[in-house]
Amino acid sequence: MLKATGTCARAPGPTTLRDVYAEADIPTEIQRALTSFLDIQQERLAAIGPELEEQVQAARDATSGGKRLRPSFCYWGFRAAGGNPELPILKAAASLEMLHVSALVHDDVMDSSDVRRGAPAAHRRFEALQRARSAASGTGGDPVGFGIGAAILLGDLCLIWADEMMHTSGFDAASLASASKFFDAVRVEVTAGQYLDLVAQASGEADMDRALRVLRYKAATYTVERPLHIGAALGGGGQHLIDSLSAYGLPLGEAFQLRDDLLGVFGDPSKTGKPAGDDLREGKRTVLTAYAVEHASEVQLAEFDRLFGRPDLDSDEIQLLREILQDSRAVQACENLITERTEDALDALDRAPIDDETSRKALADLAIAATSRHL
Amino acid sequence: MLKATGTCARAPGPTTLRDVYAEADIPTEIQRALTSFLDIQQERLAAIGPELEEQVQAARDATSGGKRLRPSFCYWGFRAAGGNPELPILKAAASLEMLHVSALVHDDVMDSSDVRRGAPAAHRRFEALQRARSAASGTGGDPVGFGIGAAILLGDLCLIWADEMMHTSGFDAASLASASKFFDAVRVEVTAGQYLDLVAQASGEADMDRALRVLRYKAATYTVERPLHIGAALGGGGQHLIDSLSAYGLPLGEAFQLRDDLLGVFGDPSKTGKPAGDDLREGKRTVLTAYAVEHASEVQLAEFDRLFGRPDLDSDEIQLLREILQDSRAVQACENLITERTEDALDALDRAPIDDETSRKALADLAIAATSRHL
Repeated sequence: MLKATGTCARAPGPTTLRDVYAEADIPTEIQRALTSFLDIQQERLAAIGPELEEQVQAARDATSGGKRLRPSFCYWGFRAAGGNPELPILKAAASLEMLHVSALVHDDVMDSSDVRRGAPAAHRRFEALQRARSAASGTGGDPVGFGIGAAILLGDLCLIWADEMMHTSGFDAASLASASKFFDAVRVEVTAGQYLDLVAQASGEADMDRALRVLRYKAATYTVERPLHIGAALGGGGQHLIDSLSAYGLPLGEAFQLRDDLLGVFGDPSKTGKPAGDDLREGKRTVLTAYAVEHASEVQLAEFDRLFGRPDLDSDEIQLLREILQDSRAVQACENLITERTEDALDALDRAPIDDETSRKALADLAIAATSRHL
Repeated sequence: MLKATGTCARAPGPTTLRDVYAEADIPTEIQRALTSFLDIQQERLAAIGPELEEQVQAARDATSGGKRLRPSFCYWGFRAAGGNPELPILKAAASLEMLHVSALVHDDVMDSSDVRRGAPAAHRRFEALQRARSAASGTGGDPVGFGIGAAILLGDLCLIWADEMMHTSGFDAASLASASKFFDAVRVEVTAGQYLDLVAQASGEADMDRALRVLRYKAATYTVERPLHIGAALGGGGQHLIDSLSAYGLPLGEAFQLRDDLLGVFGDPSKTGKPAGDDLREGKRTVLTAYAVEHASEVQLAEFDRLFGRPDLDSDEIQLLREILQDSRAVQACENLITERTEDALDALDRAPIDDETSRKALADLAIAATSRHL
């Protein structure tokens, strides 16, 4: 089904997430859903012990901020299926943010990242708490081990809570049942994608095939396709819409992650919430680095291998790595891929069986906003 | 409702789990459910990448063996509610075993345990795998970090799968909805109990109050009460039965964990699947050690503090700690508590509104078997 607005989507002007959210104030609603859910959990956990307050507080902080992309895609998938916006879709969509926080908390433990969204990563936060407690009491064990253990448990709680948020969102059993296969799929896929990523880091291999699979499962299905599917299923969408949302969501999700990978290397720390060049210190194997390794000169490659993944890189060394990524044309290749896949997504959106013009425009705007340099 | 068989339950003769399972071959059925679920997951994950085979294999090994206590309580809670045994209750019950494996895998990471059920703990297994891979390729990162990361993801997968096993077990939406509040509760409670335990280890405080709360949330609700509730809810049991199962399940769960704590210190490694005295090396704070600290002489206490929680304890030092636990009468106190709480559980069972005599006898036998010295 071709729509006149399809062409309009190609010239959306300067679209930011703020513009997209003008349509429906998704971040505020998601924050409200998360806060009121955690209020209930706080009471439940207080009955078990006052110590649990520390976990709830960590969950509150970890669920603050962020771009709320996954709930946004879920919301617009629902609206695209003709779902009634009076239904508790934003409560259901907020469960994807809770899931995301679970993945981030565990990811930071696995990567030994110190900072997340401009604040100490959860395991560092718990480590500091234990250090303070030990200092006050003059006794106590290893704060690093405590921090890791507490963050593993926080991630577990958020994973459990994501499920509880979804199935207590207020949708009827039939709608929940049709969404559940996608909700099961996304949870397994993101965990599997994380494992691919872990194997890639550990092997030190910059294999393009594996980088593309990580891109797909750790990002494209997780950030865009499955949230759309969950929303569409809750809204009563049929198989044709589900397939069309894949055709839009998968290339868009890849474009989004390619942008995120570029920002991880070149981004402004005040916007990314992570120290400059953090992905270079972590040795994060991405399509960007895989391309560089495949196309760098011998001298560049030797330099790259010497520096990449060293936790103590200084700003000159980071600059050197950035130049190798530029000179090997890896950056340009990623920019081209982003443009190409965003175009593919918008083409698929033109063909998608979506009657609601507001949804169609929001999905087009989201595509631009999620892949722009200013995210 | 008093039952004639109530008295019979007091003189069950030598009851082992094997005797209990003669009634319904729960371990075989649970294994079958886990295996066929993992067969499906294996196919799904193979589509993402061949590396995921390693996660599925680890999940298969981690879900083998074990006493299947939680599924057993779930099954008999269902039967006690008059549930039809033709329904897929053992498939639903198997989800509790998957949940348990998730908790064990993460617990072993948090405690740096090397061995579980007589085999390397999951993080050690992944560490060895990465070590072999690095040796073969001549490259590769830190195997210890890989092991921890991979085990975090395995625990996440099992936690997600526990939910999927439950809601795809084949029960109708109404039955699942009534069980879901208990399923949500047990997942949160065990995680919260783990956090209490972590705080207790880290603080080095042997506080009896906290030890009793850990006992309740990490063990009693998790191992006995909630599995009974989930089974009873799936079987259509009402609030009176749910309350009666709490009255039976909570003291029994505490008695079970007290036995487990004694076995962690005095148990035969060939039966516990853990090295002798492992809990003493870990510095596991239990009711047993809390009692000892409260009642030991000054000399004993100084020895205890010097040795307890040292990872390198030799067999003489383990023996010395065991003697302190005996001489402070902590062991006898725990034995008394076990007897008392098992009696409380059996008294509550006598009063429970359970018509089915087979269920009543099985629950009585389970109480004896789960708290006996020969578990």
